[in-house]
Amino acid sequence: MDESLRQAALQYISEAAAYIRTEMKKGYDVDTKANKDDLVTTVDKNVETMFQEKLAQDFPEHRLMGEEGSFENIHDLDGTVWILDPIDGTVNFVHMGTGFAVSLGIFQDGEPVFGVVYDVMNDELFTAVAGEGAYLNGHALPNVPDRTLSGSLISFNTGWVIHNEKYRELVDKVRGTRSYGSAALELAYVAAGRIDAYLSLRLAPWDVAGGSILVQEARGLVTNLNGEKLDFLHKDSLFAAAPTVYRDITNHLNGHSS
Amino acid sequence: MDESLRQAALQYISEAAAYIRTEMKKGYDVDTKANKDDLVTTVDKNVETMFQEKLAQDFPEHRLMGEEGSFENIHDLDGTVWILDPIDGTVNFVHMGTGFAVSLGIFQDGEPVFGVVYDVMNDELFTAVAGEGAYLNGHALPNVPDRTLSGSLISFNTGWVIHNEKYRELVDKVRGTRSYGSAALELAYVAAGRIDAYLSLRLAPWDVAGGSILVQEARGLVTNLNGEKLDFLHKDSLFAAAPTVYRDITNHLNGHSS
Repeated sequence: MDESLRQAALQYISEAAAYIRTEMKKGYDVDTKANKDDLVTTVDKNVETMFQEKLAQDFPEHRLMGEEGSFENIHDLDGTVWILDPIDGTVNFVHMGTGFAVSLGIFQDGEPVFGVVYDVMNDELFTAVAGEGAYLNGHALPNVPDRTLSGSLISFNTGWVIHNEKYRELVDKVRGTRSYGSAALELAYVAAGRIDAYLSLRLAPWDVAGGSILVQEARGLVTNLNGEKLDFLHKDSLFAAAPTVYRDITNHLNGHSS
Repeated sequence: MDESLRQAALQYISEAAAYIRTEMKKGYDVDTKANKDDLVTTVDKNVETMFQEKLAQDFPEHRLMGEEGSFENIHDLDGTVWILDPIDGTVNFVHMGTGFAVSLGIFQDGEPVFGVVYDVMNDELFTAVAGEGAYLNGHALPNVPDRTLSGSLISFNTGWVIHNEKYRELVDKVRGTRSYGSAALELAYVAAGRIDAYLSLRLAPWDVAGGSILVQEARGLVTNLNGEKLDFLHKDSLFAAAPTVYRDITNHLNGHSS
């Protein structure tokens, strides 16, 4: 990919993060949940508007797909499309003041070229240029490890898993489970080998665009729960995992012994 | 409490954390899980030994209760007892390289006087002197908020919750669930208002000593799952929560509508 594109994307994210941290500090003086919900909506919108203005100025042919409205005009991935979630993990933003991320995936004619997930409060920057591997704060991440199912940590939304017998059985087969409340961070953690699988029933393209590139560049697998390729134009389920764990979970869910 | 005792405890933790970070960096070159399990055991033991030596030198009348052997001689909390978990969240240490904490609670004649939970990799230091409130990196934490059950985030071990009908129902009643794999950090998050309740079926005194002081100093409640006071001498269940959420979860588990 064009190095100037990568540099521009990182610069925009750095500016967005500085703005988010400033608003977050103010947010600690906001007492009510309703006010905090307003805050996150405002911050979400302002970051997306900032990206729209930057693109209009620096890359006028590029298009932006974001959670806050700019997705409505995007019906294909022709040319260069930036898929942005200004704040992935809005409940964490409002409730915890941490545990959220800026997520960005850049696609050219539907192919991923650059993925970023930035944990704003813990200053962890996960990046991946297509074909060049995944990085954490500039250090190359190794390929995701080949783990057994019984040696794996997996993450998901518990409220979904507890109502499904197959998933409850899966919980008993793994080393442990985690739940962080941010799809972007959970994908980044799969890429970093911190967890070995992340499953979700329904996510939007901007939730997964950046993180899915990270996982693929760390040699992990990313599909929907039917094993099909993501199209990044519609909401879908998500299944990201290290290859051995992807295989064993698929076998378990299909009723084969693993 | 004696200011020199607080200063000494923080100094020991700072030295322990520097040592842990050094070993963690080396650990990234260790490939196999068996070797990583050895690493965490070694680090655990070395940190506990360091505390034993410091106490013998600086506070010879104080006693240490730790996971790595020094608990065996502690059958009461008379005098001053330091209850230490050198690495709380050992699976996270081995598997993720982050998401673990040093946990320390200091008790005088059974009463808590100082609690510390230190998230080593994210540099978040949670502290509480009895009667003086809880702090994060030197900034006072507000009292835990009065949240409704439907507005709460709660955390627990999913593998335990999915097999219990009452807890599965509870998951449906809350805003969301989280799971981090470190009791010390989850208690610190309750104290910081990031999550509103943490429940566990079975923990050791060193898992909860530091964090429980944090929660109490932020005006949260800490008991076992029967509502009884913890004795810090035996393994027990744990239920830490903001008061309104503690009440609503208790009512739910006892079959009252909430």
